[in-house]
Amino acid sequence: QALGGRLGARWLTTPATRRRYGESESHHGGHLPDRVAQPIDIAEVQAVVRAAGQAGAAVTAFGAGTSLEGNAAAIAGGVALDLSSMNRIVEVRAEDLLAVVEPGVTRRQLDRELRATGLFFPIDPGADATLGGMIATRASGTNAVRYGTMRENTLALDVVLADGTLIRTGSRAPKSSAGYDLTHLFVGSEGTLGIVVGATVRLHGRPEAVLSGSWPFATLAGAVDTVIATIQCGVPIARIELLDPAAIRACNGYAKLDLPEQPTLFVEFHGSPAAIAEQAELVGAIGADLGGGTLDIAGDPDRQRTLWRARHDALPAARALVPGAVVWVTDVCVPISRLAEAIGHAHDAIARERLVAPILGHVGDGNFHIFFVLDPGDSAAFARASRINDAVVAQALAVGGTCTGEHGIGLGKREALIAEHGPEAVALMRRLKDMLDPGKLLNPGKIFIPK
Amino acid sequence: QALGGRLGARWLTTPATRRRYGESESHHGGHLPDRVAQPIDIAEVQAVVRAAGQAGAAVTAFGAGTSLEGNAAAIAGGVALDLSSMNRIVEVRAEDLLAVVEPGVTRRQLDRELRATGLFFPIDPGADATLGGMIATRASGTNAVRYGTMRENTLALDVVLADGTLIRTGSRAPKSSAGYDLTHLFVGSEGTLGIVVGATVRLHGRPEAVLSGSWPFATLAGAVDTVIATIQCGVPIARIELLDPAAIRACNGYAKLDLPEQPTLFVEFHGSPAAIAEQAELVGAIGADLGGGTLDIAGDPDRQRTLWRARHDALPAARALVPGAVVWVTDVCVPISRLAEAIGHAHDAIARERLVAPILGHVGDGNFHIFFVLDPGDSAAFARASRINDAVVAQALAVGGTCTGEHGIGLGKREALIAEHGPEAVALMRRLKDMLDPGKLLNPGKIFIPK
Repeated sequence: QALGGRLGARWLTTPATRRRYGESESHHGGHLPDRVAQPIDIAEVQAVVRAAGQAGAAVTAFGAGTSLEGNAAAIAGGVALDLSSMNRIVEVRAEDLLAVVEPGVTRRQLDRELRATGLFFPIDPGADATLGGMIATRASGTNAVRYGTMRENTLALDVVLADGTLIRTGSRAPKSSAGYDLTHLFVGSEGTLGIVVGATVRLHGRPEAVLSGSWPFATLAGAVDTVIATIQCGVPIARIELLDPAAIRACNGYAKLDLPEQPTLFVEFHGSPAAIAEQAELVGAIGADLGGGTLDIAGDPDRQRTLWRARHDALPAARALVPGAVVWVTDVCVPISRLAEAIGHAHDAIARERLVAPILGHVGDGNFHIFFVLDPGDSAAFARASRINDAVVAQALAVGGTCTGEHGIGLGKREALIAEHGPEAVALMRRLKDMLDPGKLLNPGKIFIPK
Repeated sequence: QALGGRLGARWLTTPATRRRYGESESHHGGHLPDRVAQPIDIAEVQAVVRAAGQAGAAVTAFGAGTSLEGNAAAIAGGVALDLSSMNRIVEVRAEDLLAVVEPGVTRRQLDRELRATGLFFPIDPGADATLGGMIATRASGTNAVRYGTMRENTLALDVVLADGTLIRTGSRAPKSSAGYDLTHLFVGSEGTLGIVVGATVRLHGRPEAVLSGSWPFATLAGAVDTVIATIQCGVPIARIELLDPAAIRACNGYAKLDLPEQPTLFVEFHGSPAAIAEQAELVGAIGADLGGGTLDIAGDPDRQRTLWRARHDALPAARALVPGAVVWVTDVCVPISRLAEAIGHAHDAIARERLVAPILGHVGDGNFHIFFVLDPGDSAAFARASRINDAVVAQALAVGGTCTGEHGIGLGKREALIAEHGPEAVALMRRLKDMLDPGKLLNPGKIFIPK
């Protein structure tokens, strides 16, 4: 109640608001928080966390609501802590290639702010996620093959712990050996260990020149083998994305493109004009031997933007394939040499279960997504998707991969977590959780199945 | 005793052996373990850790003994756990750009093994350290500006916990969002949270062509400003190292070179012949405007090897400057824009205290080292070095940097750790230590000052 007085109109309990925070872009919907808090500064976050601790209420941090594994679903009710009002870009230090941001800053907002500086922030999940959310899920995207993920691009954090204490992790130095790596304890912890209220992230120089294009292949194997050979040759390619024919069909429909419905690579090269011409030639030669058609390279920024926008809109594009559909997105990541076999295995399973399920992904990292397009009322179809998901995860783990490359564990991969790391390592993760959140109030039920 | 029976000749208690493990390349010498265990497999490590736990004896992991902050000094006696016999390269998966190693593998051993594969492992502290030791201190080296540090290049670990449990962290996938980042909890933990008994590390394609050379400058400021501008321009330089005139003098004497005794950059470019020629031209133009002399670039591998060997031998070279000297090496890391001021500040302090103290380092990362060359009997000189060290660390922290870029906290930077991260974050680090090592037996007294 005291909190309600302090936050005023930013302490919300109406059913409509609660419903809004009960939804996300994932198929894990329908969990309503009891209240929504919209803090505007760190002190308010501390006040909410402390009050919730006293009341024994759950606190689930919420950014843009674009996570895909129910990572921010308020399954235990409590307070949805909407950090989207904390959206100031506190500082851009172009000379040190870093920015200091509040957690509610979105990736497009940061991109706009950086436009005049000659720098950019490379991490680009499809949606316009918040940086706080991207830190929470250890997100990556199309540029990760060259520029790394949120792990490599987060230098320092401000974190409010479960008892309301504020800590700072990391520094502005490019590297450090000073003590335990608290920054990376919180990156990827999905709001279960503390609330990220500030971050220092790495920026990169905008490339002198960019070439990108789409590249149809006769076979999926040819496209994947081109990716594998490109990575193994050490070409510093900036982006190399695979879309299967079903994914191309979805993008053509949604983005009004007319790409041939074949296995297709979207590629991009960053560097000096001479360097990228050389890279494009080398990669072109690799693909030509593997059934690649014309590598249609565009220097034209408008054309490039259209192409990548279509790629980023793959989720709504998949949703638009079937009227009224929901899309369940899963992702796995495997060692690059096992990529062709993993995707082939997934295609076989999809065919066996007769689902509409485009596959696409950041294949330069061995990471791919399956978009199960489902009728929300068809529980049998969900069961079929679930079988495919289980099989794809099992196959990824069998070849030394991971059950999620960039979406996090959330609700959907909690059993897979144990299969991947083994009970001893997961027991250690649980001990970390118990130590940092003894009241079990920070995003409860995520990552671990409640005992 | 049972352990003695099991390990046989690899369970050592003679004074000579104990003395050998009481020394390191650092100035923190003279701490003798009571016993030395030389396990050859994970089960033996588990047995030693369990037996030590029952006996209440400390266990301090030991690799090549090349750490610089007393990181492996057995200050509480107990068992020195020498992992150098666990030195098998278990697997090289060239197609996935990774290797699986035991902790006693040294970086040169791995380099030799990789020679035929077209790949290399980029992390190169000066000494021929073990991979386990490099993981423990979150080491980096001359290539980190392009290829990252042990943090970016460690994919997965096998770790024996204080109670003898073996856990596996990470996977062979290039990236993952699956649960808490246990790998990076142990990377940089200096053997205080668990014993690393295996690691999966990233490999990189050997560059098609390499150009490297030395580059004298009229002023130190000009050399440093060249580094800053190079990084800010986004040139993907592979190595860019600074040596001040005192460091050049040391290298000339030790490696029989005749480099001019001026502030000097050692640079290296990796890529296609065209790309690196372009990079060298760009960087050359930057430096020419800032007082750089002739950028003497060699394609000749022998000449390149001589140059980088001299750079890697900087520590013995500094030691050889004064007969009978010991060298105290300190390192800090700052945001690149503050590098010139930080090094200038260090030079002023060295001049004020009238010490022989070459400065050199991985300036592309904002990281530099001071080599205090000291008469072991001259306690006043140690006190002067200590004052310089304190001032340099304070200055690094004041500009947002870190008290150590790559050497770790060990014994020497324990107070600096608190100054850097604040008492709340260090309290959290201590809670992690207490949770993972409740008996306080794993490398006690390191990172934290005992309460």
